[in-house]
Amino acid sequence: MGEEIGIGLLGCGIVGSAVARILADDADEIMERCGAHITIRRVAVRNLAKERDVPVPRDLFTNDAAEVVSDPNVRIVVEVMGGIEPARSLTLAALSSGRPVVTANKELIATLGKELFAEAERSGADFAFEGAVAGGIPIIKPLKESLAGERIRRVMGIINGTTNFILTRMSQEGIEFDQALAEAKRLGYTELDPTADIEGFDAAAKVSILASICFDSRVVAGDVYREGITRVTARDFTFARALGYEVKLLGIAEAVDGRVAARVHPAMIPLSHPLASVRDNLNAVFVEGVHVGQLMFSGQGAGGPPTGTAVVGDIVDLARNLTSGSRGVGCTGYRQDARIRHMDETSSSYYILLEVDDRPGVLARVAQTFADHGVSINSVWQEGFGDEARLVMVTHRALERNFQSLLGALRGLEVVEEVASSMRVITDEE
Amino acid sequence: MGEEIGIGLLGCGIVGSAVARILADDADEIMERCGAHITIRRVAVRNLAKERDVPVPRDLFTNDAAEVVSDPNVRIVVEVMGGIEPARSLTLAALSSGRPVVTANKELIATLGKELFAEAERSGADFAFEGAVAGGIPIIKPLKESLAGERIRRVMGIINGTTNFILTRMSQEGIEFDQALAEAKRLGYTELDPTADIEGFDAAAKVSILASICFDSRVVAGDVYREGITRVTARDFTFARALGYEVKLLGIAEAVDGRVAARVHPAMIPLSHPLASVRDNLNAVFVEGVHVGQLMFSGQGAGGPPTGTAVVGDIVDLARNLTSGSRGVGCTGYRQDARIRHMDETSSSYYILLEVDDRPGVLARVAQTFADHGVSINSVWQEGFGDEARLVMVTHRALERNFQSLLGALRGLEVVEEVASSMRVITDEE
Repeated sequence: MGEEIGIGLLGCGIVGSAVARILADDADEIMERCGAHITIRRVAVRNLAKERDVPVPRDLFTNDAAEVVSDPNVRIVVEVMGGIEPARSLTLAALSSGRPVVTANKELIATLGKELFAEAERSGADFAFEGAVAGGIPIIKPLKESLAGERIRRVMGIINGTTNFILTRMSQEGIEFDQALAEAKRLGYTELDPTADIEGFDAAAKVSILASICFDSRVVAGDVYREGITRVTARDFTFARALGYEVKLLGIAEAVDGRVAARVHPAMIPLSHPLASVRDNLNAVFVEGVHVGQLMFSGQGAGGPPTGTAVVGDIVDLARNLTSGSRGVGCTGYRQDARIRHMDETSSSYYILLEVDDRPGVLARVAQTFADHGVSINSVWQEGFGDEARLVMVTHRALERNFQSLLGALRGLEVVEEVASSMRVITDEE
Repeated sequence: MGEEIGIGLLGCGIVGSAVARILADDADEIMERCGAHITIRRVAVRNLAKERDVPVPRDLFTNDAAEVVSDPNVRIVVEVMGGIEPARSLTLAALSSGRPVVTANKELIATLGKELFAEAERSGADFAFEGAVAGGIPIIKPLKESLAGERIRRVMGIINGTTNFILTRMSQEGIEFDQALAEAKRLGYTELDPTADIEGFDAAAKVSILASICFDSRVVAGDVYREGITRVTARDFTFARALGYEVKLLGIAEAVDGRVAARVHPAMIPLSHPLASVRDNLNAVFVEGVHVGQLMFSGQGAGGPPTGTAVVGDIVDLARNLTSGSRGVGCTGYRQDARIRHMDETSSSYYILLEVDDRPGVLARVAQTFADHGVSINSVWQEGFGDEARLVMVTHRALERNFQSLLGALRGLEVVEEVASSMRVITDEE
């Protein structure tokens, strides 16, 4: 007992300071668990003058990040600066010098995972990224290791806390998106620019990582079909509830006939589904495997301490490998080029809300249009009368391509005033 | 690529045959993930004559288990026979010969974990047991590794599927325990003798394992306070629902002032708690950590394929260690002797149902008795009149010792006809 392992921290924001605090607070437990003293030896920050409430001596801070990566006392590099550059160059430099790297940078992995894993493979350095998806929830390691003997069919998750908070408020209070977003801003649950969250970019990055691991394929963020939540309305929640559903922003990755389909979009999900009761800013990942059946992992998907816990878990793992002279399995996943199934070729059930004329023959015209496009109707009901007449419809499973051309045709129908809303539906049978 | 790693299977029942099938079905994926061909080289069974639907050549079966453990072609021993002997001797023999062992035998670990871990430590052989708790749900590895940098406060779980099925039926159908047990028997959800499930022995074994890992202490099954579900009534569910609770059999382990308190008992849990909606024969483990907050892991806690998945995950892990010449962290936990907090010294809220006389002054007498024993009342309501009069009470947190002496005193009160029921309550504030 007693070997020291020096850490170089790249970035000291919310996650970085949480990591520093956990390493200090839990030093004894960590020492017991990995047989080494883990010590921060150098911290790269942009602004040296800024006051920071972290248990790290001032003289360890530098604004020369390259110096941290090449410091001979630094044996593990922890990248928690975020963004693509200089995170990419620094991570590559660390890996190519043989230093294991821990990162919580989902954007980097979702965009350049292939390059980073290749470098880790070449140099033999461990590369771990538990904190990149779903914050403190252990999901990357369980997928890579505990389920190593499993064939995963589908992974489906609520992996963005901000949008889940907004949708929970809309569901509970009956308010519109803008109001719920304003509340999320007031409570500090959004970034200054909320686009990455509400338009699904953040979730798409995480889905690409989950898909890469589950299906051992190099799926990048750009491979993920993406729709945000800005067009979800209070009325959608009303009809969802009437139909027995909750509305959630889901990230979904599945293997269909040897291809990976990955997407992020709002969806109706049965109230009885475990994901339906994941509320507020919580995250949850639902995994379906051939042998294991359905598993769910839930918890805090963001925030300094939870994500810091994930990063420290990875540090302890890599430190154990260093002390035992072994190597982790950092490069599982990402081995094959991904064969992506285009969104058009996926299938789903759909909810659709039509503002229609209230006169005989309208339903017949609408139903015929569905039939013409090969989309079969599961249920339909009329809401309101006269100018307020609406059809609320749910389809059986249909091909996305067919559904999209159906939408176009419905918009052209003279009896349809407006296609007011449509949303994919996760059914009980799936 | 291409190294072969021979497996010796001890037992070929429900879990053993699932393991054999998964290893055969997913051979390619497993080869990709651990860089070795994993092949069953020998299978020990009691009855050689029995027909078995497993993809293993007949001539690999033997009824001499010792031969499997010492076979030079067997590099990993997989113990899925269950029970204490000969599982214990065989596991010790394997470990002492330096062979890594995977087991799904909760009874063995809960009783003799200390001895087994000591032998693994001495010989340097890996020892893994993901399948021993909560079947296919990855929980042991996440606790040991992903949360290695975390201080866990409490772990609380629904870790017995049979009792959760029974309680779910009682909750949904309003039926009594005996009826629900009969239904579970009819559906094959019980052992021939259901005692281990319904009296909480199975859950207590699992709690002792979870407690050992979370608190790095050698907690054995006998250290776990245990109450089963045979005295839970349909009426308890009625009152629970009225109070906003569900009734679940919980396994709980927590660290309080440096001591480990571990227990299994039925409890009322708020309907809004994630564990309240874990239904049927599902399992779930709820973990509370200082930094990570609340995490939940849920899924199929038993059955051949889910447990088989956990066992195969461990096999792949240990095979990777063999091919890379490294070693796992099989012995984390179990390092310190446990300092157990006696049940009397734990505290909880309680629900209590009293059959009382319906006359003035009764509540005053009852309330005074609570006060005399240092138990503070949170809520009370009277149900029914005359001969049917009852008091439904919920207490604030109180010491178990005080509550038990209160129960004794209430039974002696002349105005109390019967203490009809009492149950611990997990409150929202916890």
